[in-house]
Amino acid sequence: MFSFELIAQSTKDRARAGVIRTSHGVVETPVFMPVGTRGSVKSVSPEELLAAGARIILGNTYHLYLRPGCDVIRRFAGLHRFMHWDGPILTDSGGFQVFSLAKLAKISGEGVTFQSHLDGSSHLLTPEKSIEIQTCLDSDIVMCLDDCIQYPATREDSWEALEITTEWAQRSKRTWQETQTGRNALFGIVQGGMFRDLRKRSAEELMEIDFPGYAVGGLSVGEPAEVMLEMADYTLPTLPETKPRYIMSVGIPENLIELVALGADMFDCVLPTRNARNGQMFTHYGTINISNAQYKEDTEPLEPGCECYTCRHYSRAYLRHLYMARELLAYRLNTIHNIHFFISFMKQIREAILANEFESFRKAFYRKLEN
Amino acid sequence: MFSFELIAQSTKDRARAGVIRTSHGVVETPVFMPVGTRGSVKSVSPEELLAAGARIILGNTYHLYLRPGCDVIRRFAGLHRFMHWDGPILTDSGGFQVFSLAKLAKISGEGVTFQSHLDGSSHLLTPEKSIEIQTCLDSDIVMCLDDCIQYPATREDSWEALEITTEWAQRSKRTWQETQTGRNALFGIVQGGMFRDLRKRSAEELMEIDFPGYAVGGLSVGEPAEVMLEMADYTLPTLPETKPRYIMSVGIPENLIELVALGADMFDCVLPTRNARNGQMFTHYGTINISNAQYKEDTEPLEPGCECYTCRHYSRAYLRHLYMARELLAYRLNTIHNIHFFISFMKQIREAILANEFESFRKAFYRKLEN
Repeated sequence: MFSFELIAQSTKDRARAGVIRTSHGVVETPVFMPVGTRGSVKSVSPEELLAAGARIILGNTYHLYLRPGCDVIRRFAGLHRFMHWDGPILTDSGGFQVFSLAKLAKISGEGVTFQSHLDGSSHLLTPEKSIEIQTCLDSDIVMCLDDCIQYPATREDSWEALEITTEWAQRSKRTWQETQTGRNALFGIVQGGMFRDLRKRSAEELMEIDFPGYAVGGLSVGEPAEVMLEMADYTLPTLPETKPRYIMSVGIPENLIELVALGADMFDCVLPTRNARNGQMFTHYGTINISNAQYKEDTEPLEPGCECYTCRHYSRAYLRHLYMARELLAYRLNTIHNIHFFISFMKQIREAILANEFESFRKAFYRKLEN
Repeated sequence: MFSFELIAQSTKDRARAGVIRTSHGVVETPVFMPVGTRGSVKSVSPEELLAAGARIILGNTYHLYLRPGCDVIRRFAGLHRFMHWDGPILTDSGGFQVFSLAKLAKISGEGVTFQSHLDGSSHLLTPEKSIEIQTCLDSDIVMCLDDCIQYPATREDSWEALEITTEWAQRSKRTWQETQTGRNALFGIVQGGMFRDLRKRSAEELMEIDFPGYAVGGLSVGEPAEVMLEMADYTLPTLPETKPRYIMSVGIPENLIELVALGADMFDCVLPTRNARNGQMFTHYGTINISNAQYKEDTEPLEPGCECYTCRHYSRAYLRHLYMARELLAYRLNTIHNIHFFISFMKQIREAILANEFESFRKAFYRKLEN
């Protein structure tokens, strides 16, 4: 079971609010999805994710396939019970990691061969295999294997990757239809590099195959933010109004709010979690580096008024102390705040859209940030 | 405010149950106190400590004095608010760390000079200074600075350390009387190495000074378990019946239960927390090394029937996966279980003492362990 309902549309731009229904629960959009690469959103528990407002999380097919492997996760009938997360899970297809993390990735007719970054073992990932792994994970939203190229890429390379991505999407859909019970949903991923016409072509080819949702991949791969936004600006309107649109692996709050304005519904990024572990904390007034000496005796919370667990109970001085001492609790408390920030930022955006006040919200957001 | 009430005494041995009242709450004895060296019991939150049954925790004077320093903690009127722990806190005097962790520790008439293990800076720790730091931390139970010698130590060295410890205890008591408001309690620490008559002498000298509680220090410093137990067996009965008796830095469950049988009331040890981070898990059937391949597909909890958060929600397979992947959550989930194990082990012991069934409990404990 999977559905998407559009419930509000900003009149001054393309921002929209919706509801996704999955067999593991409801997700209100626009939504930010924390990344739980290896079956754990680093340092936080499922209860803490819920308390921070998270309703859907990501898992990574590549990582979970290599370790602990499907044999293990199958014993738990999927990732949910394995990791004690009852809410919806979206898994990527493994494509991005194969091309960025694994060694010697090589595309053949069948799929892509690669060597594990863990032990150098050889593997073949095909569109069919990716579906099979994600089915074993019991993901609520399954992504098609795509060919992720690096930035910058020539027009020729971008075209080739697009064509492979389309072919793999067809094969993914076919496998999907043959094996699924209709519990979960399969999304296509638009590629096409930084070329408008290729993006359009990719979107059209995927729409012909027909998916219940579409992602825009291959962004935030090193290009300037303007180029990323330009590509999103051009690609998003080519996708069907009635389906959720997911921009993968982006990014800072300023980019998220712009992408919402362009009509995107779903986001994921390691930024709030990874930066938390490096001591960079997000607030409505910009980022804070908690290791800064100015916080040594600061009895205030990270962001006064913030309702996250960390801000309700701990001071900047304590967080700085934990961080400087490399205490494990530091990573958790920082992560809780950053996830809460991203999620509640999306909630505020959603409420603004529902009230048809998104444009004034956006202006107020920038005013605060520049303060 | 501080009091100790003896409420039950085993008729077949010296095991006893009591209640300690402090200005931050009540502690039932025998009690195990998790160690929060640097203002955090590594990887777990105060709420998790409470849920695992912890009612009193340790803080380390040496570590907190060096970082973040009293200037910081004073702004929070003590360690409780700084670290968001409302329950009782016991702090060691810093003596043990100065002699084991700092560099170039050298005893003078005044106290002990040492170099910080963090930055090599020079410091002088005196009995008065230790009281001052612990007062700034607002510890509920403050320990006298003692002279901790290494194992093995000659009779001459042990005697000298004992004499210094007694002199420092007198100075600690004096400072204490001049500066305290009666909110907290000061404990003396028995030294004397592995020499019975020196242990007796140390205990007598401390009792002459008169403290509301007594610790036995200088044990678990490398001596065989039999020697440790022999020293405790000899020392504990020399201490007043009506005061709590605290064996410092010991140890494995088998030692704890023996020390309870000898009349000890309070314990602390880094074992459950440190070993958790190394994947060694305590159960009533012995220890488990979670990295062991036999747990790869094991859907059972660490210890079936265990009511800790970890065992209620996660399998051995998941814990093994997290541990092998070095996921931060691994350390937390493991720590929660081990702390819960130690605390509930003490609770079971206490209930057995209250029912005057401690001896049969002890036998059953060993039977299970050897199973």
